[in-house]
Amino acid sequence: MGWAIALHGSAGDIPLSLPPERRQPREEALRRCLQIGVEALKAKVPPLDVAERVVRELENAPQFNAGRGSVLTSEGTVEMEASIMDGAAMRCGAVSGLTTVVNAVSLARLVMEKTPHVYLAFRGAEEFARQQGVEIVDASHFITEENIDRLKQAKEANRVQLDYSQAIQNDTKKEMPLANGDSQIGTVGCVVVDGHGNLASATSTGGLVNKMVGRIGDTPIIGAGTYADARCAVSATGKGEAIIRGTVARDVAALMEFKGLSLKEAATCVVHERTPKGTVGLIAVSSKGEVAMPFNTTGMFRACATEDGYSEIAIWPSSKN
Amino acid sequence: MGWAIALHGSAGDIPLSLPPERRQPREEALRRCLQIGVEALKAKVPPLDVAERVVRELENAPQFNAGRGSVLTSEGTVEMEASIMDGAAMRCGAVSGLTTVVNAVSLARLVMEKTPHVYLAFRGAEEFARQQGVEIVDASHFITEENIDRLKQAKEANRVQLDYSQAIQNDTKKEMPLANGDSQIGTVGCVVVDGHGNLASATSTGGLVNKMVGRIGDTPIIGAGTYADARCAVSATGKGEAIIRGTVARDVAALMEFKGLSLKEAATCVVHERTPKGTVGLIAVSSKGEVAMPFNTTGMFRACATEDGYSEIAIWPSSKN
Repeated sequence: MGWAIALHGSAGDIPLSLPPERRQPREEALRRCLQIGVEALKAKVPPLDVAERVVRELENAPQFNAGRGSVLTSEGTVEMEASIMDGAAMRCGAVSGLTTVVNAVSLARLVMEKTPHVYLAFRGAEEFARQQGVEIVDASHFITEENIDRLKQAKEANRVQLDYSQAIQNDTKKEMPLANGDSQIGTVGCVVVDGHGNLASATSTGGLVNKMVGRIGDTPIIGAGTYADARCAVSATGKGEAIIRGTVARDVAALMEFKGLSLKEAATCVVHERTPKGTVGLIAVSSKGEVAMPFNTTGMFRACATEDGYSEIAIWPSSKN
Repeated sequence: MGWAIALHGSAGDIPLSLPPERRQPREEALRRCLQIGVEALKAKVPPLDVAERVVRELENAPQFNAGRGSVLTSEGTVEMEASIMDGAAMRCGAVSGLTTVVNAVSLARLVMEKTPHVYLAFRGAEEFARQQGVEIVDASHFITEENIDRLKQAKEANRVQLDYSQAIQNDTKKEMPLANGDSQIGTVGCVVVDGHGNLASATSTGGLVNKMVGRIGDTPIIGAGTYADARCAVSATGKGEAIIRGTVARDVAALMEFKGLSLKEAATCVVHERTPKGTVGLIAVSSKGEVAMPFNTTGMFRACATEDGYSEIAIWPSSKN
């Protein structure tokens, strides 16, 4: 029993040969964001606030696919989405299709707290952002040179995805690693439990490189990309379509609740037995302060810390996972 | 073992005093749509096609809140959403924010079959509809006089919902029945199993009267409003926000899979023990051809039939539920 925090900066096909200049800035961002979360927990900041604060930092870090750094749609635009859930109260909020909002996760929280709804999207979400007075910027702010290149590479490698005249086998479609060793997919997330067992989860993303305009992934879907209840908090990352079909975040909690599995057993079962290889990673904490960070992709940018002093920042499999 | 089909035309606060002129046309529409589904099953039409066909008919019936008959947003516009899931293949498709598409459920199926994605929304979904050549009409087609009145009544009864400056307690917010005895909420859905145990589910809605523009409810959320796997198919209706928080459709299936409950036990548990009273109804069929149609609202417009000859069309509680 004690507080615990875990965060991720996406799972995907991350080759072991990833050059240091692409690896180290991300490890440093993870370390910095983890530290922010740990300090907040030590200062007794509530889990929901900690999860939101850490995800805001991850959104603001251009190394990750969320907020500034979001990948581009097939039209070269950014459409960001996020969700947040408070495990104790089973309250949640979600947003999709944001083009000007600096911190999607905070708008998701405002949907939860200031509207009768759970989920607002596209124009309605943007209008709500303006009513609430959250920070907005010109849509071009989110578009990095790197993501213009990523889109170009994705279009060249992958042009069938845009040929809607043919049916596409969702399940067999393979992620194409980009020339610079980066993944086309990505998400950031944070799960938190305090010393009283109160849980919270938050997830944010720019989605999938070269996605169709209007595409919604797993990140804003409660039960898919994000879930928290009285037992655990989960944030998933990977191929959104597989995560939606697998109701991944809810299934971790459901295996604990309905089958009596431990956090580690439930998370491992969902990732390694119930979802296709190469599609998913997740971070999870339990009300007892346990942490699980399994993935069935090559790697997952991740970090965690617990009250007893354990801390980890990693990308590829370690003996702990 | 044998085929089974169930459909709903929404659950809500439906008073026993509902006048015959508001009751009978809906019962007749349910009977007609049920008959279409039964004939298709007898003709060996695959479950996914049956579910889509029946929901199209329900969308086309102006008595229900989906397709023509959809309720209006706070701006007086229509934003329709739908989803569909094939239990055998665990494939699914979803759409939100449609303004001109006659049959949202069929567009959800096209997202499933013709794109690498699961879920398209708003402008991107409308553009996809045009690329696919599905039937579209002017947005005004969906707006009925009755729904203009409904919006007016909802705004008068319920104006706090539009005051975003104050926090609103999602869970305590009560549905306000309208003067004509109708509900402000509504959805249509159909679940089907064939004689081989293959399952499908489809759900479609106009959402919630006076909803904020951009609001997404449970209907397009896989695991909330719609779910199907190898054990059961589920379509939920009611207060979308409560259904999202309760991951209602997935939880019915998860209780069967992880806890070994029967269809009826699982559906009853979710509706009567796990979701707040007055918020949810659902229809479900199992791979064995069982049917469950529990609700914790005053009533649910519903119908079902099974291969052994049983058939039911009902609104309020019956001895069977």
